[in-house]
Amino acid sequence: MSLHYLFILGICVEAITGAIAAGRKKMDFFGVIIIACITGLGGGTVRDTLFNTHPLTWVSHPEYLIYTSICAFFTIIFAHHLTRIMKVFLVLDALGLATFVVIGTQSLLSAGFPSSVAVIGGMLTGICGGMLRDILCNDVPLVLRREIYALVALAGGVLYVTLERYNVSHEVDVIISLSCIFFIRVFAIFFHIEMPKFDYAKSVNKRKNIP
Amino acid sequence: MSLHYLFILGICVEAITGAIAAGRKKMDFFGVIIIACITGLGGGTVRDTLFNTHPLTWVSHPEYLIYTSICAFFTIIFAHHLTRIMKVFLVLDALGLATFVVIGTQSLLSAGFPSSVAVIGGMLTGICGGMLRDILCNDVPLVLRREIYALVALAGGVLYVTLERYNVSHEVDVIISLSCIFFIRVFAIFFHIEMPKFDYAKSVNKRKNIP
Amino acid sequence: MSLHYLFILGICVEAITGAIAAGRKKMDFFGVIIIACITGLGGGTVRDTLFNTHPLTWVSHPEYLIYTSICAFFTIIFAHHLTRIMKVFLVLDALGLATFVVIGTQSLLSAGFPSSVAVIGGMLTGICGGMLRDILCNDVPLVLRREIYALVALAGGVLYVTLERYNVSHEVDVIISLSCIFFIRVFAIFFHIEMPKFDYAKSVNKRKNIP
Repeated sequence: MSLHYLFILGICVEAITGAIAAGRKKMDFFGVIIIACITGLGGGTVRDTLFNTHPLTWVSHPEYLIYTSICAFFTIIFAHHLTRIMKVFLVLDALGLATFVVIGTQSLLSAGFPSSVAVIGGMLTGICGGMLRDILCNDVPLVLRREIYALVALAGGVLYVTLERYNVSHEVDVIISLSCIFFIRVFAIFFHIEMPKFDYAKSVNKRKNIP
Repeated sequence: MSLHYLFILGICVEAITGAIAAGRKKMDFFGVIIIACITGLGGGTVRDTLFNTHPLTWVSHPEYLIYTSICAFFTIIFAHHLTRIMKVFLVLDALGLATFVVIGTQSLLSAGFPSSVAVIGGMLTGICGGMLRDILCNDVPLVLRREIYALVALAGGVLYVTLERYNVSHEVDVIISLSCIFFIRVFAIFFHIEMPKFDYAKSVNKRKNIP
Repeated sequence: MSLHYLFILGICVEAITGAIAAGRKKMDFFGVIIIACITGLGGGTVRDTLFNTHPLTWVSHPEYLIYTSICAFFTIIFAHHLTRIMKVFLVLDALGLATFVVIGTQSLLSAGFPSSVAVIGGMLTGICGGMLRDILCNDVPLVLRREIYALVALAGGVLYVTLERYNVSHEVDVIISLSCIFFIRVFAIFFHIEMPKFDYAKSVNKRKNIP
């Protein structure tokens, strides 16, 4: 099924974001490859570990580790070209996110978890790769600050399970959920739609100025 | 049983500490909610993952995620009031720690683990939520530096299993262990009792100055 | 078997590196002990969690936690002596790495995992303790930047499974793989052999300067 190819695309795009982040921290070539693999496959790994749905994706399909390693390798060589196609890249990243969320939600539903839990699992599949990347690169996770990344992942999962419950055919459900996550995310990127930030220091100081 | 209500109180208080930490890093509202959930429920999640006692607490009770999310939401709105009740808050946090440790130790004992392992598991339940919060907020974990936080958690677990072994009735055991952890921690906070720090650079330089 | 004693040596040496890192961040004594335990036993813990080969090593052998704690304790007391024997220490660390990789690979092979997966698991056993140490100490993991640390771990695992496949006797296989990892790593330390670094900013800027 074509969802499979979108998944491969997703782990490759995520792996490239991982390789770039590793390059910003001046890691060595093998470190770049490890971060790329963790970024591409970390989301599913966190999901399968937390929900005890072993074996992990890359344990049943070790070839995925080769795909992500190759992406890391090409990122090292063609890094200077990536800045030019950054917009294309962000669009592919949105497609990857959409695929991860749909596959994650779907796999937990079919493992017998209730809808509410499957939605959380879908979101974790979408965001945890990026979170692990940023933890390993010693940054505050971007997905918790960037344009409504995590929220889109959650909303997409909710849409998926809602359609599933109303007996929408499986394929239609996948296509609708995938498209919604993808377009909302792309929309958010290009129009810089962000959630309001919670600035603790500002909240506290603002109050103190009131007599 | 009332331990259940203390547990809910515990995850809520921990969630608030998570939301404040996220606010210090200027995360967006949804990022704040995610950090709050991870801080409140991360300790039990680490325990259940490491000891393979699935399903996770929040998988069987997804409503806990709603409680911690609501706490995050209220923290965002009432952040400026929290500074005024910081002492009350620290006392509630001590109560949360005590509950986490007792519940964690108890759950591993009843899963058939030996006492020594159950004590470690109880401590992890108490400290890992805060550790995950600080890792995600890109800080060195406070629980490894703050007033005897982790040590109190370990000692409380040891007390619990010791009383259990001497056939103290279950309820009395819970009450004694809970009170001890709570009062020692509150005592440590108000009298600033800290463990000595290991300062590597200082140890090394001090030696060099000796002729 | 003597591999067992090398393993104990390995967790002790790793625990000392953890304690030193914790001391650099001025953690309290108990924080130092926790970091030491996580560094010494974290690699195996990550492996067993990801590959679902429960119980964890330190759950079946809680005495290992005592060994690593004692090492942390001695590091605190004798920190000023460690700088003098740093070279000896790095050699012991290489021996620890070699042991971890061989034991990790071996344990996954005997649990029925395919060779490719066992190699990854062996590498994770070797590097994840140090990665967790650096994450908790808020540093970018050294193993992703230091002299070919992770790559040696991977290559050693590949050698192990290759020899295994060619029906080399188990003991000879262990001795050859162990020695190779050990000597290559020691060689890399003393001659400062490093992998090339991927510097993203430099790659991008270099390109921009070309007319």
